[in-house]
Amino acid sequence: MGKKCIGVDVGGTSVKLGLFQVTGELIKKWEIPTNKEEQGKYIVNDIADSIRQVLEHEGVPLTDVEGAGLGVPGPVMPDGYVEVCVNLGWKDRYPARELSDLLKGLPVKCGNDANVAALGEMWQGGGKGYTDIVMVTLGTGVGGGVIIDEKIITGKHGLGGEIGHIHVRDEETEHCNCGGVGCLEQVASATGIAREARRRMAACETPSLMRNAGEQVTAKDVLDAAKEGDALALEVMEVVGHYLGVALASLALTVDPQMFVIGGGVSKAGQYLIEVINRHYARYMPISENRGTIGLAKLGNDAGIYGAARLVLD
Amino acid sequence: MGKKCIGVDVGGTSVKLGLFQVTGELIKKWEIPTNKEEQGKYIVNDIADSIRQVLEHEGVPLTDVEGAGLGVPGPVMPDGYVEVCVNLGWKDRYPARELSDLLKGLPVKCGNDANVAALGEMWQGGGKGYTDIVMVTLGTGVGGGVIIDEKIITGKHGLGGEIGHIHVRDEETEHCNCGGVGCLEQVASATGIAREARRRMAACETPSLMRNAGEQVTAKDVLDAAKEGDALALEVMEVVGHYLGVALASLALTVDPQMFVIGGGVSKAGQYLIEVINRHYARYMPISENRGTIGLAKLGNDAGIYGAARLVLD
Repeated sequence: MGKKCIGVDVGGTSVKLGLFQVTGELIKKWEIPTNKEEQGKYIVNDIADSIRQVLEHEGVPLTDVEGAGLGVPGPVMPDGYVEVCVNLGWKDRYPARELSDLLKGLPVKCGNDANVAALGEMWQGGGKGYTDIVMVTLGTGVGGGVIIDEKIITGKHGLGGEIGHIHVRDEETEHCNCGGVGCLEQVASATGIAREARRRMAACETPSLMRNAGEQVTAKDVLDAAKEGDALALEVMEVVGHYLGVALASLALTVDPQMFVIGGGVSKAGQYLIEVINRHYARYMPISENRGTIGLAKLGNDAGIYGAARLVLD
Repeated sequence: MGKKCIGVDVGGTSVKLGLFQVTGELIKKWEIPTNKEEQGKYIVNDIADSIRQVLEHEGVPLTDVEGAGLGVPGPVMPDGYVEVCVNLGWKDRYPARELSDLLKGLPVKCGNDANVAALGEMWQGGGKGYTDIVMVTLGTGVGGGVIIDEKIITGKHGLGGEIGHIHVRDEETEHCNCGGVGCLEQVASATGIAREARRRMAACETPSLMRNAGEQVTAKDVLDAAKEGDALALEVMEVVGHYLGVALASLALTVDPQMFVIGGGVSKAGQYLIEVINRHYARYMPISENRGTIGLAKLGNDAGIYGAARLVLD
């Protein structure tokens, strides 16, 4: 049968769970709704109940489980302390300790969801076979995770891998959600790409496929148009690629990973997007051609449960 | 007596050596010239001879030495391979293995000199008491080192901590030595600060203390004038501080250290420089006030021998 481990990805709408072999095969995955009532006080209980039920149904005794990992949407201190998770209503919690207490002292570890997803991609996804990767998730925002020697760089204040808020654009004037100005997220997230497209369309009269969508233009519209050779969309992607290239080169000159794994909704644009990023990245890495490569994530929304399960295998 | 360790900092002009207690006290330091003849083939032999002589003179048997560390001016691969050290004439070398062979199999490790200096500052310098620091050396160029959990992030291609070549300035037009454009080194090194001052002086008629030096203006002139309240020098330091602040914030959002240690000749400007950097750094870290602090290096030119000695204590 072999030992098992459990990965839990706690989101604001639903909690995703996965039961794994410690060798990385997914045995079963399922979801439960996130009960955010009363500052999310029921969430950890619901997770423990659901794990117990599934283990019983699968005929897996708790003693066959090495442990469980939790990915949560907020900063996690090195000791597992979570000061605040806005999306869950949590304040001042030690979620791993709480879940462990509810599961007879099962080893439980907790990490930030973006960092944990990076660990998942290293374990069984786009970075499989590597020990040092940086994941960049281009979704509504831009998230990230830095994995060195198969371990998350959490950081001493829970800020490790917060690469969406790296300042890349001096001429930006609007503010980011973080309070900063010119963050990577403002130009490379799905929201940021769409905004850049609206700005370009407003600033000129050039015909473009993107104009069909007008103010409702999405990152997908931009990427689809760029793939068709649409001049204005290509201009937008040059801007996006420039700042992503700058950020990735900066990361390569700091932690020098084997690979960058690009995930999130925007990464559905596939190899075209990788080529755009790669061209700009190379321009800012003239120091060496022997450097980390750039590729696509493979686990999609399951990266979180994979990474959470991997958390407890150290 | 206690166990000893040896730190060796191999430079293009001289090799600095230090004999240490494993607890960090420097027992003796000395230097030998760097013999660069015949592609530097004598350097490792000279180091081994010198170590033998000093150990004999100090009455320390080789068996009391835990090991020796080497800091070298070039990239070092995780396996100790040095493809090239331009300043030494080295090509295709495994210097740690060579030194070990000459010292009866003594454990020897090798690292890049900037990374090794960072480890030294963590061990007994400005970062003493911490496990996670980033060192930024503002000298003729800009060097760096990233230390996480008391270990150097070497990187998988020897590019870890190459923060002088992080691209920070989009509007730069001149090229950096690395082939890039807009590198941190181009604006924050001693050379870069002086160049920025020359540019400002050429672009306006504003009177300035810096004009006494004219084209020969140095980073020290700029910093001295800025401390006197000289308007043009303050403008130059705002530019320098901006890009240093951006770079440090980017590093904090990647590896999130406890502390940034600022060293190199430019850091002789002391607390004034720290305050300039800190103000800009804070602006690009609105995400959290709980973040790495910024302080001065303490070991000066000895950081290399301290860090090299610390290399072998893992």
